[in-house]
Amino acid sequence: MPTDVGVAVVGAVSLVGEALVEVLEERAFPLSELHLLDDDEGVGHTVVFNGRNLRVGGADRFDFTRVQLVFLVGASTLVSECHVRAITAGCRVIDLSGSIPVEQQPCLVPEVNGALLDSETGRRAVASPLPESVALAIALAPIRHQLGLHGITVTACLPVSSRGAAGVKELARQTTELLNARPLEPRLFGRQVAFNMLAQTEGVDAQGHAAQERRLVDELRQLLDSPQLEVSVTFIQAPVFFGESLVVSLRGSRDADAQLLSATLEAAPGIEVVASDDYPTAVSDAIGQDVIYIGRVRCGICDPRQVNLWIVSDNVRKGAALNAVQSGELLIKDYL
Amino acid sequence: MPTDVGVAVVGAVSLVGEALVEVLEERAFPLSELHLLDDDEGVGHTVVFNGRNLRVGGADRFDFTRVQLVFLVGASTLVSECHVRAITAGCRVIDLSGSIPVEQQPCLVPEVNGALLDSETGRRAVASPLPESVALAIALAPIRHQLGLHGITVTACLPVSSRGAAGVKELARQTTELLNARPLEPRLFGRQVAFNMLAQTEGVDAQGHAAQERRLVDELRQLLDSPQLEVSVTFIQAPVFFGESLVVSLRGSRDADAQLLSATLEAAPGIEVVASDDYPTAVSDAIGQDVIYIGRVRCGICDPRQVNLWIVSDNVRKGAALNAVQSGELLIKDYL
Repeated sequence: MPTDVGVAVVGAVSLVGEALVEVLEERAFPLSELHLLDDDEGVGHTVVFNGRNLRVGGADRFDFTRVQLVFLVGASTLVSECHVRAITAGCRVIDLSGSIPVEQQPCLVPEVNGALLDSETGRRAVASPLPESVALAIALAPIRHQLGLHGITVTACLPVSSRGAAGVKELARQTTELLNARPLEPRLFGRQVAFNMLAQTEGVDAQGHAAQERRLVDELRQLLDSPQLEVSVTFIQAPVFFGESLVVSLRGSRDADAQLLSATLEAAPGIEVVASDDYPTAVSDAIGQDVIYIGRVRCGICDPRQVNLWIVSDNVRKGAALNAVQSGELLIKDYL
Repeated sequence: MPTDVGVAVVGAVSLVGEALVEVLEERAFPLSELHLLDDDEGVGHTVVFNGRNLRVGGADRFDFTRVQLVFLVGASTLVSECHVRAITAGCRVIDLSGSIPVEQQPCLVPEVNGALLDSETGRRAVASPLPESVALAIALAPIRHQLGLHGITVTACLPVSSRGAAGVKELARQTTELLNARPLEPRLFGRQVAFNMLAQTEGVDAQGHAAQERRLVDELRQLLDSPQLEVSVTFIQAPVFFGESLVVSLRGSRDADAQLLSATLEAAPGIEVVASDDYPTAVSDAIGQDVIYIGRVRCGICDPRQVNLWIVSDNVRKGAALNAVQSGELLIKDYL
């Protein structure tokens, strides 16, 4: 007999947290109760769910034995601490924080490795990976064998919403200041992001790689079950509010057929392909959608084994909130 | 005895044309007279040169036997037609139009292949390549042997000034409309470019490559004298007014040493290297400068023979106007 589950969202007062609540409602997630939790700054906010105003409570005081499924949004110490408490309380956990290495807690992208949970029935915690890993895994999974894929080079153009509501506010503020010819004092991003491109360098290590870049490599190798895959990635920060754009170059072991690749991608779950005389953009196509958009599918100018793709996706919805909720649906399957 | 030369600029009423006149003045180019020319729309405009207002004349009526050196800016039919007339009149030509294949008219980037003209004394016409080819050639020439370079993957983020003053005006207009919550009707670029990234598709061929992408491959192979170099390139359009940002991934034939590469780049002409705990941006560093800026010099996460670079450059000045004037200086050397 189906039993609804109690659900908690830690980090509810955030772009991803709010999108997550929206997706839970849209998909009629089988929940008996929903607890929205955050730190002191978020406590007292209200979020609408199924026509009711839910008040955000303090995550530090929450008794996790009251729920069966927990979504962890954000990368604060509060989230890490809740991870431990939720697991100890016997909850199943979908972790969006990226704070735990993939060897200890695998990533889940339902279109790609949804079967993971069939073979690991005891698993109680999975990660929802970076939005860029979600989009790349969905795009590459259906074509990697066709290509004999062994290498991938990615430029990931992030929107400011990757830094949450504060990023969105800062781009709006900087743009207004510049258009009104007022002097600019950057408050976030460390410099002018409006009408400029930044080379993301948060958490750069001694070798010069950003933490997100290493995380993407690990996540993609695990998601595609390709521990030898050669991934080269650069994250850049674009003056865009919502939606990520990925420029992808693939190296395969045999000559590629762009038409066949397009057809394979078109038939795969979670993908919309745009014909080569046109292309999708984050703003005009991806925002608010449950699929990623792929365009400019073409073979290399110099090397017929090389393939280029242009991918756009809603980083907040498709890349985070929706992927987490779909993962949650799989993780509680045996309850229902 | 030194003799100054008569100079004409066709396409003078443009961002690059105006920057070119500025650079001619700054570098005290040895000219006896300067003729600014354009189509009917440009005729009658005035441009300041050495404190004097120069009136722009009609290129279609100009007698090219009056000058010895001609700069051709833009890609109009007027420019193609002037190319023929200037050559016929015995002029030396610096062509920025990109309309002639590199096999017929080689590109010149003085820092890279300035010696070209020593070996080809009869040469009267050279091309100034795409701004992106200029930046890449300057960055790769000093390190390609050190790397054993055989492959390069580039994402070129273009500013709207790549489409001239009309591009600049359109981004400003779209941004203002959106910030004022007015409905957006794109006039240039075919769609929303403000707060969005576009995948450039002008002049896409049957294989899906844009004309600029093929041009960059041809130019880079010629400039680096590497006809077998495997180049994969994607041009994207960013909501940035001035300055291009290039994300570059290199594949060499031996393990790379990031520190040694940085030192080699730092010692090369036309380059400023930024240390790995920081990075340059187009707006904060490159604009108005005579050098390109390189940052995030790092070896691959997965492959030690792979190297990543982040390059920013002033597309109008360094990538076009300055490169053309420096090329002109070399082309008229035997006059002086």
